[in-house]
Amino acid sequence: MNMNNKNIIKIGLFGYGTVGRGLYELLQRVPESGMVISRVCVRDVARHQTESPSLIFTADRREVLDDPEVNLIVELIDDADAAYEIVTEALRRRLPVVTGNKKMLAHHLPELIELQKEMHTALLYDASACGSIPVIRNLEEYYDNDLQVSVKGILNGSSNFILSKIFNEGMDHAAALHLARRLGFLESDPTLDLDGWDSLFKLVILTLHAFGVYVEPEQVFCYGITNMNDNDIRFAREKDRRFKLLGLAEKLPDNRLTLSVIPHLISRNKFIYSCEDEFNGVVIKGLFYGKQFLVGRGAGGHPTSSAVLSDISAIRYDYFYRYKRMDCAGELPVFSNDLSFRAYVRYNTEDDLDLMQFEEIYERYTSDKFHYAVGRVNLRRLHDIRPLLSERGIFIAAYPPD
Amino acid sequence: MNMNNKNIIKIGLFGYGTVGRGLYELLQRVPESGMVISRVCVRDVARHQTESPSLIFTADRREVLDDPEVNLIVELIDDADAAYEIVTEALRRRLPVVTGNKKMLAHHLPELIELQKEMHTALLYDASACGSIPVIRNLEEYYDNDLQVSVKGILNGSSNFILSKIFNEGMDHAAALHLARRLGFLESDPTLDLDGWDSLFKLVILTLHAFGVYVEPEQVFCYGITNMNDNDIRFAREKDRRFKLLGLAEKLPDNRLTLSVIPHLISRNKFIYSCEDEFNGVVIKGLFYGKQFLVGRGAGGHPTSSAVLSDISAIRYDYFYRYKRMDCAGELPVFSNDLSFRAYVRYNTEDDLDLMQFEEIYERYTSDKFHYAVGRVNLRRLHDIRPLLSERGIFIAAYPPD
Repeated sequence: MNMNNKNIIKIGLFGYGTVGRGLYELLQRVPESGMVISRVCVRDVARHQTESPSLIFTADRREVLDDPEVNLIVELIDDADAAYEIVTEALRRRLPVVTGNKKMLAHHLPELIELQKEMHTALLYDASACGSIPVIRNLEEYYDNDLQVSVKGILNGSSNFILSKIFNEGMDHAAALHLARRLGFLESDPTLDLDGWDSLFKLVILTLHAFGVYVEPEQVFCYGITNMNDNDIRFAREKDRRFKLLGLAEKLPDNRLTLSVIPHLISRNKFIYSCEDEFNGVVIKGLFYGKQFLVGRGAGGHPTSSAVLSDISAIRYDYFYRYKRMDCAGELPVFSNDLSFRAYVRYNTEDDLDLMQFEEIYERYTSDKFHYAVGRVNLRRLHDIRPLLSERGIFIAAYPPD
Repeated sequence: MNMNNKNIIKIGLFGYGTVGRGLYELLQRVPESGMVISRVCVRDVARHQTESPSLIFTADRREVLDDPEVNLIVELIDDADAAYEIVTEALRRRLPVVTGNKKMLAHHLPELIELQKEMHTALLYDASACGSIPVIRNLEEYYDNDLQVSVKGILNGSSNFILSKIFNEGMDHAAALHLARRLGFLESDPTLDLDGWDSLFKLVILTLHAFGVYVEPEQVFCYGITNMNDNDIRFAREKDRRFKLLGLAEKLPDNRLTLSVIPHLISRNKFIYSCEDEFNGVVIKGLFYGKQFLVGRGAGGHPTSSAVLSDISAIRYDYFYRYKRMDCAGELPVFSNDLSFRAYVRYNTEDDLDLMQFEEIYERYTSDKFHYAVGRVNLRRLHDIRPLLSERGIFIAAYPPD
């Protein structure tokens, strides 16, 4: 039993945005960690070199990957394609990698798992989903034996921050968006946060670890809060509920697995109701342990860099994801969109209403100001008409009964 | 990289109460787990044999420990002294052990850590603190690099269940107690739950993993809800707060570490406010990742046995606690009780008030029905007079300002 492991970690870092800088600051606070940043690859060397003169910056990937001192790669850039190239190249050189790039992961996980096995080299990415919350690690290491029922949560801190400001402080949409941007909570492309794509990428990653199944992001219905307006907010308030943008992966009794990213009307008695601001909250449900709720900051440089640091430290202790659920003896669940759920739909024309193909309508409201219906809609149908929903300004939220 | 590990785990089980039976039921639901219970040591063999005829029961410890088939011990008995003997004997035979015995652990952790190192054999005990919540594992593996600030939480499901029934359903103390007992949420000795001892044992365990420091339970001021009465409940309601029994370990800026188990008056904006019923909730705070909140069932057979199963599975993957915080390069914090805090104290006589040695009194209320004071009290003083407080029916709760 090796109770200790004192080798020095020399990090080759790609990207020096909020999280990269956060990592540097964190390492300066814990000099005893035995981790140092050897080289940093960025586009704008001059600017960063002035900012952090004690680091060595370069614009050339090779200089980091070829550095014989570097024994671990941390990849924290925005560009998913470039990230993919860097990560695969590093793994092929048997350099372990820590990444936070959810988009890249969500699109390439199956091959990245193969590459890890082939090269006997670890790729860790807990920072990619829910910032500081160790969801992936817990799904891998702790909830791996129980009969997993569902994983559900607020997976995007920025949209949650905006919803919180609207619901708690009465801010309007635009002001909340502006504040989120100012605090550095928004991705460089804000539609990633607001349209739910960021949540979707994380959901795909979590689903693989929770159920052993890889689902391509394109297969999943994903709808954000971009079309939400004051009428919707008023509706939620009247029902004493709040909108929360949730990613949900759920195993149905017939061994089908359904995924979705949709705003939900959440009532007060739910854990997730009080998960506010830039916090993420994930509810993991298993047959025996019941409900587990994990909350932590899901945006911001320091919380996310702290997750990166945990992964670096885990690699030092030879940790790697085993993807146990993928190899489990039982039959793996099969992804399906063919499932209906109770929804609130705010629409503009009768034509919009037809488009939805409601299986059943429980409630309808029309006035000169706005129209809504509450009824059962099918996830597959929504997926098929997604671009139309978005264009026509229709807003949809799951509206579970009390 | 060994992506799989298919050896069969043959469990020698000690104890067949709620959790032991829960483990048996869980294993029957996941036959593909490759774990079987080989032998069970219980006091009343005849009764259990009738209940679960497919298991092999014995009253003789030796029969389990000597069984050459058994390759892992699960210890789930009530008696802390007997548990200590079983666990140490098993480790000496290089049999890895999973235990849920917080009392035994809280009193023997330092020597058990030594014994693990000496015998190169793992002892895991995540089930001992907060039932189904993987707090220990996360402190060990995930929050091990950040600058840890505090660990605070509802560590006892039974007392939380009772407080919830009182505050949410208007039940009286006795009825809530009766219901908790009927649902199997109380320890065989209910004062362990209600007087805070159970929370204290868990706090001692968590503190070791969070801060690398072992504090003997006897050094810590621990006060439960036994003396709470209707006046206290009314006071909390008037302030729009709820009592929650919290264990708290906090690092002070001068590198002192303070521990306590006390009821707290919790306001609505706190995560812990909405942690209800038999749920446990732990807030872990680090300088960089900020606040993390973990919630899950803290009482009941299935949630706890699911934690036992996670530990068994971890042993199969050669996992062991590294107690990294104990070996860290920086100076370890030093335990201290010399700290004052703002408290609500409901007392009976002027003499009681003198006994408290308030450093400052902010508020006093006296009537023919009851008396209380709000002021600053010293933890060390409270620790010194603990038996008197209890005898005199004094109730104390931490009362942080808004």
